[in-house]
Amino acid sequence: MRQPGRHFLQIPGPSAVPDRILRAIGQQTIDHRGPDFAAVGQRALDGMKSIFRTRQNVFIFPSSGTGAWEAALVNTHSPGDRILMFETGHFAFMWGKLARRIGLNPEIIEGDWRGGADPDQIEDRLRADRAHGIRAVCVVHNETSTGSVSPISEIRKAMDAAGHPALLMVDTISGLASIDFQFDDWGVDVAVSGSQKGLMLPPGLSFNAVSDRAMETAKQASLPRSYWDWHDMAGPNKTGYFPYTPATNLLYGLNEAIDMLHEEGLDAVFDRHARNGAAARAAVRAWGLEVLCNRQGQESGVLTAVLMPEGHSADAFRAKTLELYDMSLGNGLSKVADRVFRIGHLGDFNDLMLMATLSGVEMGLANSGVPHTPGGAQAAMDILKANAA
Amino acid sequence: MRQPGRHFLQIPGPSAVPDRILRAIGQQTIDHRGPDFAAVGQRALDGMKSIFRTRQNVFIFPSSGTGAWEAALVNTHSPGDRILMFETGHFAFMWGKLARRIGLNPEIIEGDWRGGADPDQIEDRLRADRAHGIRAVCVVHNETSTGSVSPISEIRKAMDAAGHPALLMVDTISGLASIDFQFDDWGVDVAVSGSQKGLMLPPGLSFNAVSDRAMETAKQASLPRSYWDWHDMAGPNKTGYFPYTPATNLLYGLNEAIDMLHEEGLDAVFDRHARNGAAARAAVRAWGLEVLCNRQGQESGVLTAVLMPEGHSADAFRAKTLELYDMSLGNGLSKVADRVFRIGHLGDFNDLMLMATLSGVEMGLANSGVPHTPGGAQAAMDILKANAA
Amino acid sequence: MRQPGRHFLQIPGPSAVPDRILRAIGQQTIDHRGPDFAAVGQRALDGMKSIFRTRQNVFIFPSSGTGAWEAALVNTHSPGDRILMFETGHFAFMWGKLARRIGLNPEIIEGDWRGGADPDQIEDRLRADRAHGIRAVCVVHNETSTGSVSPISEIRKAMDAAGHPALLMVDTISGLASIDFQFDDWGVDVAVSGSQKGLMLPPGLSFNAVSDRAMETAKQASLPRSYWDWHDMAGPNKTGYFPYTPATNLLYGLNEAIDMLHEEGLDAVFDRHARNGAAARAAVRAWGLEVLCNRQGQESGVLTAVLMPEGHSADAFRAKTLELYDMSLGNGLSKVADRVFRIGHLGDFNDLMLMATLSGVEMGLANSGVPHTPGGAQAAMDILKANAA
Amino acid sequence: MRQPGRHFLQIPGPSAVPDRILRAIGQQTIDHRGPDFAAVGQRALDGMKSIFRTRQNVFIFPSSGTGAWEAALVNTHSPGDRILMFETGHFAFMWGKLARRIGLNPEIIEGDWRGGADPDQIEDRLRADRAHGIRAVCVVHNETSTGSVSPISEIRKAMDAAGHPALLMVDTISGLASIDFQFDDWGVDVAVSGSQKGLMLPPGLSFNAVSDRAMETAKQASLPRSYWDWHDMAGPNKTGYFPYTPATNLLYGLNEAIDMLHEEGLDAVFDRHARNGAAARAAVRAWGLEVLCNRQGQESGVLTAVLMPEGHSADAFRAKTLELYDMSLGNGLSKVADRVFRIGHLGDFNDLMLMATLSGVEMGLANSGVPHTPGGAQAAMDILKANAA
Repeated sequence: MRQPGRHFLQIPGPSAVPDRILRAIGQQTIDHRGPDFAAVGQRALDGMKSIFRTRQNVFIFPSSGTGAWEAALVNTHSPGDRILMFETGHFAFMWGKLARRIGLNPEIIEGDWRGGADPDQIEDRLRADRAHGIRAVCVVHNETSTGSVSPISEIRKAMDAAGHPALLMVDTISGLASIDFQFDDWGVDVAVSGSQKGLMLPPGLSFNAVSDRAMETAKQASLPRSYWDWHDMAGPNKTGYFPYTPATNLLYGLNEAIDMLHEEGLDAVFDRHARNGAAARAAVRAWGLEVLCNRQGQESGVLTAVLMPEGHSADAFRAKTLELYDMSLGNGLSKVADRVFRIGHLGDFNDLMLMATLSGVEMGLANSGVPHTPGGAQAAMDILKANAA
Repeated sequence: MRQPGRHFLQIPGPSAVPDRILRAIGQQTIDHRGPDFAAVGQRALDGMKSIFRTRQNVFIFPSSGTGAWEAALVNTHSPGDRILMFETGHFAFMWGKLARRIGLNPEIIEGDWRGGADPDQIEDRLRADRAHGIRAVCVVHNETSTGSVSPISEIRKAMDAAGHPALLMVDTISGLASIDFQFDDWGVDVAVSGSQKGLMLPPGLSFNAVSDRAMETAKQASLPRSYWDWHDMAGPNKTGYFPYTPATNLLYGLNEAIDMLHEEGLDAVFDRHARNGAAARAAVRAWGLEVLCNRQGQESGVLTAVLMPEGHSADAFRAKTLELYDMSLGNGLSKVADRVFRIGHLGDFNDLMLMATLSGVEMGLANSGVPHTPGGAQAAMDILKANAA
Repeated sequence: MRQPGRHFLQIPGPSAVPDRILRAIGQQTIDHRGPDFAAVGQRALDGMKSIFRTRQNVFIFPSSGTGAWEAALVNTHSPGDRILMFETGHFAFMWGKLARRIGLNPEIIEGDWRGGADPDQIEDRLRADRAHGIRAVCVVHNETSTGSVSPISEIRKAMDAAGHPALLMVDTISGLASIDFQFDDWGVDVAVSGSQKGLMLPPGLSFNAVSDRAMETAKQASLPRSYWDWHDMAGPNKTGYFPYTPATNLLYGLNEAIDMLHEEGLDAVFDRHARNGAAARAAVRAWGLEVLCNRQGQESGVLTAVLMPEGHSADAFRAKTLELYDMSLGNGLSKVADRVFRIGHLGDFNDLMLMATLSGVEMGLANSGVPHTPGGAQAAMDILKANAA
Repeated sequence: MRQPGRHFLQIPGPSAVPDRILRAIGQQTIDHRGPDFAAVGQRALDGMKSIFRTRQNVFIFPSSGTGAWEAALVNTHSPGDRILMFETGHFAFMWGKLARRIGLNPEIIEGDWRGGADPDQIEDRLRADRAHGIRAVCVVHNETSTGSVSPISEIRKAMDAAGHPALLMVDTISGLASIDFQFDDWGVDVAVSGSQKGLMLPPGLSFNAVSDRAMETAKQASLPRSYWDWHDMAGPNKTGYFPYTPATNLLYGLNEAIDMLHEEGLDAVFDRHARNGAAARAAVRAWGLEVLCNRQGQESGVLTAVLMPEGHSADAFRAKTLELYDMSLGNGLSKVADRVFRIGHLGDFNDLMLMATLSGVEMGLANSGVPHTPGGAQAAMDILKANAA
């Protein structure tokens, strides 16, 4: 049966794609070896540097974000290399699993899935690694499974304090273009991202930002690679081309997205996500529910993960909300499956869409028989109206 | 500066066009005299009969709704003819003005702009017209300027009670496909509609539904006409064609819209609008404001017109709401200019979009310094969650 | 069954709509009374002045071109007024029929349907009208049924030579934006056009360009009118708005079309149509067939009408060509029905599309058993390659 | 400067994307973990089986075709494995280079780049490999750089005749959905394909069809892999889901493409490509030029590669043709750079588009001063009109 009106896609990515980007993607494919393509490719590569805030290197893969995770590791490592990872949640865990699959030796710092990576623990481990056997420190910027943000700049400082030469590798798949990320200023060596979150595109493009130092490292790294090879990319990229057929139509959309982000202003984009995150958390608290992230200052502007009251199924609530209000919410993953639901408030989003979203959660809670205090949407509105954009 | 997220077009039409319809309109134009066109045209003509709920005649014009007002009158009248009109609001007034412009002699029953047309008054006037000089009774089904609905079926009964042969002509531009309308069962002779309201299309198509009796009348009516001539249309329409170039791409969209309405079910569409209207009015009352329509049972499910507190400008409030929350609300027209604002909740719309809309109004009132009691959105939510679709 | 590849819509309008325009039309409808609309409306009105090459007045109607014919007449005449028309073909005939339908008294100069309107005959008639009872001279610029062009500037000179005050009214529905038209310099009083030809849009918008003198005439003209009234339009148009709901999405497309025409340059557009017309005629002659227009210098760059050999059905040939080659050609109208087919080469078109078109005609002739000499496409190619753009 | 009319993208892929597919791709992204996605995913996976003509396994990657080359090799091999490859042209060469990059040991049978892979030579090599050290035979079905087709079914027979257990791996990136390919009946073990050729999509999806036997082999193969792992895919695929975020919007397009191919009928699609290829070769011969593929029966229906007369630059000719006629042709690659140009006639294509293409080549040759006999387009037309679809 037809559902009237707009679907609310409030998972923490893919985010709803703005019409302007869908129209850009709908342009006719052109010859990726012809003279007109160079401008398309160059604009995308330069534009992504402005989004990563780097003057170093950016690579664009026709793949989903998972591919860029793999690219980050295979370009910089040799079989058996040790890496240090911090398990902030499900996605940090999955990156570690991938590392093992391709023959690396990850050492995992376990977290409680309620906050970002801890610079102090990282520093301790690195200090203990006197032989500098650890090749890289891998952390997730915005952990999509928990709604927590890792303090990347602090982690770099911790690494420097430990005097350790490991590369700093950051998954900012769901952070980039929604919350502050400064590749160069924060001293990141490899960043991983994807198209379907803050960049507002459909899935299908992934990104690596790469420091000059990591490019050097790649020359020695011996893990087999071809599709993901940065140095193979770097040559053709110089003139705006790619070594194999790029996802041309998604690049059209990417260029539109970059323009849109700069039209609004990256800082305004970050402020908007912060304000919407604050309003969402106010709603959760007013309902008498608990936000999963319990580290002050590390709560995400991208999504808010909410703990269900004991004895109630998050998935049953999500299914009911989808049925009655045509809104998709994110599920709890692995350790928190069915105990958590996640409210995405990222990408091409605004205050009224947030109010629709929170109203849908509040009505869904009521229709699912989940104990809560009505008034969360009202509490969010109080914050929004006091902080109009 | 770019506004992030979706614009909320909450004027009482044009309503936001669903992507499915925009994509249908975006198909390549075909030969309107070629063999493939017949299916397009026939489907549109038959489909509109199912929407008007008639087995009689439907005509489609490449024009806005104003054109179909003119078509209704020029096909059925001769210069100087008398017609009876009921001024339910601005649009009823404008139809009367048009009638005078083309040489008719409208007699206007004045209304207070706070309810639908009154069958009793119509009956009285018709009884008084013993010579049957009045050729038509013209009423507006859903008065877009006030949010009031006229009881069309009661008006037909009143005309029959008076034993008067005038044609019953109904403007259902903003009513059709949002609130119940039954051309045949209610005994309407000419209905006027447009594409950009309940039909969810961009503006550019207008419609007449015409009874067989009105078709007969048209044979004698001597007002000059060509573009709007029903009988010129009727011939080519028999095989799905048009006498002059139709707005082919909008017809693609119309066929998609008709499918969408039947997929949801017309009765479900009407229930949805009624439920959203009730929730909107609950919000207005909770804010301590007044709904313009004050006749119980005649409040519209299409829009809710709201009276501003004395001394406050509706237009200033609308401008502020547009600026801060990227939502367009309808203005007060002529007699109620700047004293009324109108909330559109028609077309491709749902509960969460309504919550976004009412939240935007509530925040806009706050940010404009309009005295009100917060909690309107909450009151609407109470109604919606108790009446989930 | 699915037809692979692109359909070739080679009727003389609607012309195939470029993707860029379809995407523009696919943008979300906005509030036509809101602040953002003014720029859309103003750009369309100013842009159309640049296309008509006028500094006087332009009006845009949500209607097909037929509506703008009616608008031209009802704004400038009173019941029973005499007008002089030249029957260059079917469309000139139809305009005359319309004039009679709305109560005018057209005097028709018959033509042989093989050339444009004749200035000398017009001059003679006007000289004979010593009482200046003729209110307007109406001619078709590019006669879509025959592929002949009337010498508008010469007609104005003939009218001036006759010292006659009649208005000069020109149907340039299929001429505008494809062949040279200069409203101001040629002294035209009212021009009529439509969206679906040189303007490359779907049907649904029509246009009047109006001289200041014709605007004055309109103040006295007493034919009843409302939808088509220029003076009602002129007020709101001053700030980019319209008196009734405009066809907003088609206006988006119109603005894109105007940009595209200026990007190519109007003179380059005219040259392109002229070159393609010359190549098409070379093909027809090489096939041993006859071009309907037999006045040198009046052959159209918009379409080429071709006489079938005696005893062969143009419609059977067109049906076969559509079936085998997925190409729509224009039919012969009224007097030349089934004796003529028309090749459209207008709008968003280029040399290779013309070669596809002419190859399709040549193969269609062969597959229909129509006697002809192969080599027409080759003859066209000789002209095109010698005159590359 | 704006180029009027349609661009002719006549490279051998990406092929021009039909509007229907662009519109499908332009639908809003949905939750790839939600209940509605399963139908999208299942339809794509099942549909691709019907295109590969297999009942075994199909995998879809968000990547370009190069990725699926890599996937085919990393799933089935261990470091240092020997494979046999036949260098039919540039793309066979590149696949071999990739194999070396990831640590395999390819043995290359050199070809002259003017025909398909030779079953006899393959049989000889396999017979000589008594120890069955060769793990796989890799051939290109339609060699995009030369326009030659390898006889896959004959190669399987040769392998069987040699009694060799190697897997048969086939790159049908540019062959699938344009020329006959029968995965099961021909005994292929792994097929590689991409979205941007016969499937008519933009680039960004790649495919592996995999025999049950190859799936078993994958369990032992030890090359490191994660993104490309078939067994990771197989689990979620069972219910229509994917282990990581799929390229949802391209899947919408894929489903539309599969429908379109079946509406036309795969056999009709293959006939169409064969007929267009024959016509293209007739044109080349009439111009007095040489078709690169010189093995009768192995000429491609997908593209025609043409040798330039000695002393003339293919790239200069291509640039001039692009400039004057807005048509992109394929360049000669590596060994035949600047000596060959390639005419793509694949995907959503028809007879009139071919005539446009060949006319553009003929005019481009003339305008570039390349010696040739005019009449090639005419020769093609003779073939097409004698073999109307």
